Amino acid sequence: MYRVYGMATSGNCYKVQLALEQLGTPYLWEEVDIMTGITRQPAYLARNPNGRVPLLEHHPGHFLAESNAILCYVADGTPFWPDERLLKAEVLQWMFFEQYSHEPYVAVARFICKFLPADHPRRAELPKVRERAHEALAVMERHLGQNRYFVGNEYSIADIALYAYTHAAEEGGVALAGYPATTAWIERVEAQPRFVPMVPMP
Amino acid sequence: MYRVYGMATSGNCYKVQLALEQLGTPYLWEEVDIMTGITRQPAYLARNPNGRVPLLEHHPGHFLAESNAILCYVADGTPFWPDERLLKAEVLQWMFFEQYSHEPYVAVARFICKFLPADHPRRAELPKVRERAHEALAVMERHLGQNRYFVGNEYSIADIALYAYTHAAEEGGVALAGYPATTAWIERVEAQPRFVPMVPMP
Repeated sequence: MYRVYGMATSGNCYKVQLALEQLGTPYLWEEVDIMTGITRQPAYLARNPNGRVPLLEHHPGHFLAESNAILCYVADGTPFWPDERLLKAEVLQWMFFEQYSHEPYVAVARFICKFLPADHPRRAELPKVRERAHEALAVMERHLGQNRYFVGNEYSIADIALYAYTHAAEEGGVALAGYPATTAWIERVEAQPRFVPMVPMP
Repeated sequence: MYRVYGMATSGNCYKVQLALEQLGTPYLWEEVDIMTGITRQPAYLARNPNGRVPLLEHHPGHFLAESNAILCYVADGTPFWPDERLLKAEVLQWMFFEQYSHEPYVAVARFICKFLPADHPRRAELPKVRERAHEALAVMERHLGQNRYFVGNEYSIADIALYAYTHAAEEGGVALAGYPATTAWIERVEAQPRFVPMVPMP
């Protein structure tokens, strides 16, 4: 059975949880609190040299890192990652967009606001980070104004990857009010079979 | 025939050029100088709402963005992206590593040093960016100390994605001297059939 090393309040980890729940794939969840520094210790680095969560133990002692690569692995052969060449690549296009143009801003704004002390110097980054977050949301809004889901008008791991932090954007002070198509898409994702919400912040 | 919109001195664009050359796939190259602001103009945004290069016109009027998604598309069905489920996901793992933990530091250090004026305020970012670049190189070095290539001991698009900016790291002041396994891997990549070097900076 899969074992997932993750922190439940991390959107990147929640992606894997949501996909496995919706696919009906059994798994064990091993909670890892990154704020303790445990992912920078030798025992963890032996499993993932990049020291990040989530991490999938797909066979005992064998690990796969990177949330979106894990989504591809667990969804391979299912309708969540279509096998047709162009659709398959379009799913990846949106997942690379998520990791390069969206997560470093939408997720980082939330991280600074919710995981760091109120007087942390990284708060100075917030104006620039939020500006970039809105640029990413504008790209999504433009696409979702004409499409029900990100690829092929079917729910896929591209939607899971982008839902994870988008739905929690306001926890980073990034208002969703100006994005009606994105807000409607969030509701469509939450109406999917076997949907489970992200664990709320304490 | 494919048409690639790209800037030849961009590592992300060079990835696509290198893959197409090595696959022997015919293509047209449409040079786009991002420093002119053309990728932020409405005509370009109609093709790629995220306003970035490279961009692949895979069929007339139909576009695929994100360098690594383009690599997957053009390499689909070839040995450069193995079809076996775990190997396929491991290639993606390294490609997501590249876009999240490597490119924003190794490529950005080079961008600041080579594309921006010597007195640009972003030079203040260099110490932190270079520190993170070295963290990414250390992860690669650890892997390449035990593996000839990134996945399955075969050359793949994971190698192409990581070669693009790694071989040019010193243009951003990120020395490669401390990474002998990575340096040897760079030489193995450059010895591959149909290898073409990146266009040098003017």
